[in-house]
Amino acid sequence: MSEVDRAVDDAPLAIICGGGSFPHAVADAVARTGRRIVLFGLTGWADPAAIARYPHHWARLGQFGRFRRLARAEGCREVVFIGSVVRPSIRQLRPDLATLRLLPRIVALFRGGDDHLLTGVARIFEEHGFRLRGAHEVAPEILVPEGTLGRQRPRPRDLADIERGLALIAAVGPFDIGQAVVVADHRVIAVEAAEGTDGMLARVADMRRADRLALPEGVGVLVKATKPDQDRRLDLPSVGASTVAAAAKAGLAGIAVEASGAITDDLETLIRDADAAGLFVVGVPASGPQARS
Amino acid sequence: MSEVDRAVDDAPLAIICGGGSFPHAVADAVARTGRRIVLFGLTGWADPAAIARYPHHWARLGQFGRFRRLARAEGCREVVFIGSVVRPSIRQLRPDLATLRLLPRIVALFRGGDDHLLTGVARIFEEHGFRLRGAHEVAPEILVPEGTLGRQRPRPRDLADIERGLALIAAVGPFDIGQAVVVADHRVIAVEAAEGTDGMLARVADMRRADRLALPEGVGVLVKATKPDQDRRLDLPSVGASTVAAAAKAGLAGIAVEASGAITDDLETLIRDADAAGLFVVGVPASGPQARS
Repeated sequence: MSEVDRAVDDAPLAIICGGGSFPHAVADAVARTGRRIVLFGLTGWADPAAIARYPHHWARLGQFGRFRRLARAEGCREVVFIGSVVRPSIRQLRPDLATLRLLPRIVALFRGGDDHLLTGVARIFEEHGFRLRGAHEVAPEILVPEGTLGRQRPRPRDLADIERGLALIAAVGPFDIGQAVVVADHRVIAVEAAEGTDGMLARVADMRRADRLALPEGVGVLVKATKPDQDRRLDLPSVGASTVAAAAKAGLAGIAVEASGAITDDLETLIRDADAAGLFVVGVPASGPQARS
Repeated sequence: MSEVDRAVDDAPLAIICGGGSFPHAVADAVARTGRRIVLFGLTGWADPAAIARYPHHWARLGQFGRFRRLARAEGCREVVFIGSVVRPSIRQLRPDLATLRLLPRIVALFRGGDDHLLTGVARIFEEHGFRLRGAHEVAPEILVPEGTLGRQRPRPRDLADIERGLALIAAVGPFDIGQAVVVADHRVIAVEAAEGTDGMLARVADMRRADRLALPEGVGVLVKATKPDQDRRLDLPSVGASTVAAAAKAGLAGIAVEASGAITDDLETLIRDADAAGLFVVGVPASGPQARS
């Protein structure tokens, strides 16, 4: 490790926190390594109680100048984005001066999918001297491990559905849409786009209830994986307690996530919930489930 | 035309009718040509009042033996499938004897997407001496023509969204899922799978209302097209009055359908409704919209 790299690593880590419990999981994991962290809570998204547990500041979406000033004052050179933020409209941004200067560029970034937007935002941070790190790099314990994680094991029919799901996610990769699909009995039931995974699972539950799917209970798999070429520092697919609850309501057999390509805030609870609901949870290599079925 | 072909063409046409208004549109169009038709209403799906307007029989899904006997007695050798049928579960079928004998094959057909199922059913009909025709072959006037069909014209930004939508439909073709997507500002908002087009558009309307999309009104296009390799005799994408209403509720700019690859039951009403709602409707060649923008 060069002197420069070490200096960067020893400096405090800026964690820009959206909603949900992932920011806390990442903050705790990094803090356990002894590294100093500074949280930047996004107003309206981050959970104030959790943010208050560490040195922190608040900023609004669009206050890039404020972030830059505070992060520099704290000596932060590395930045992590973590947590949920529902995509705002440009009109909802309250840009500060630094952001205003970047506005033509930001307007162009808004014309496209989430990857396109996030990649552009990341580039802006990097041009201003910050190094973007993935949450999974600074807190690798949040990555879902490979293999069958709970008591239930996927059956051969589930493995076939998983494989089809992974292939579909790979095929739609260039279109910068969701990272999740539901496949049941070799049939693609739902494809995630702007509605998010929980929204997609609620739709599957609705269709099942209305008898639109003509599928027996306990058939069908939620498959989540990173898109090919996705910048993993920006937006890794995540699973958590709400995913398990939504998959159970949708009558699925289980959940397959790309091992080392999806994150979870609390693996223990996730597995306990899945066991209680009778769902399997399996971490599959990106190339398909066979290697570790 | 050979003698055999002529004999087939002169024989009455069996039209197996599901729900919605397409069966009537097709029946009327074929009747106008002077050809005799015999409708086979699917119990629970076909509209009794409309079926009664022509010589007809009723049959349940799963009564293949009954269909075969009646169609032969009527002298029908060509068959058209038209109208909506929500996919039943195998358990909902009430197979007659002929269908029972085919059951192992039918069970296998149910394990997969709709194309897989329909193609297999079509093969069964053909093995029993019926020739399957596409609704668009016997009633070409139901095909959506090419070009701008109403008063509104797509803008360049809409054409870009249309192109992205067509490319996505082509990419997911091998996965035998829906034939429609919504693209707005180069971003894929929704992908249709088992929920159907109106279900997908209702979701877009919901997300828009909940401010999840961060898109201005009047941005976004519904794109519908046949999948590559789709058997057009079985399931052509359709647009109708409900499509226009749902697209308007979803705040879209317009509708693009593959010209000569999508059908409509009443083009005049569709265009009138679209004009009234301020939506464009455009028939695009499968290769993209540029050729006729």
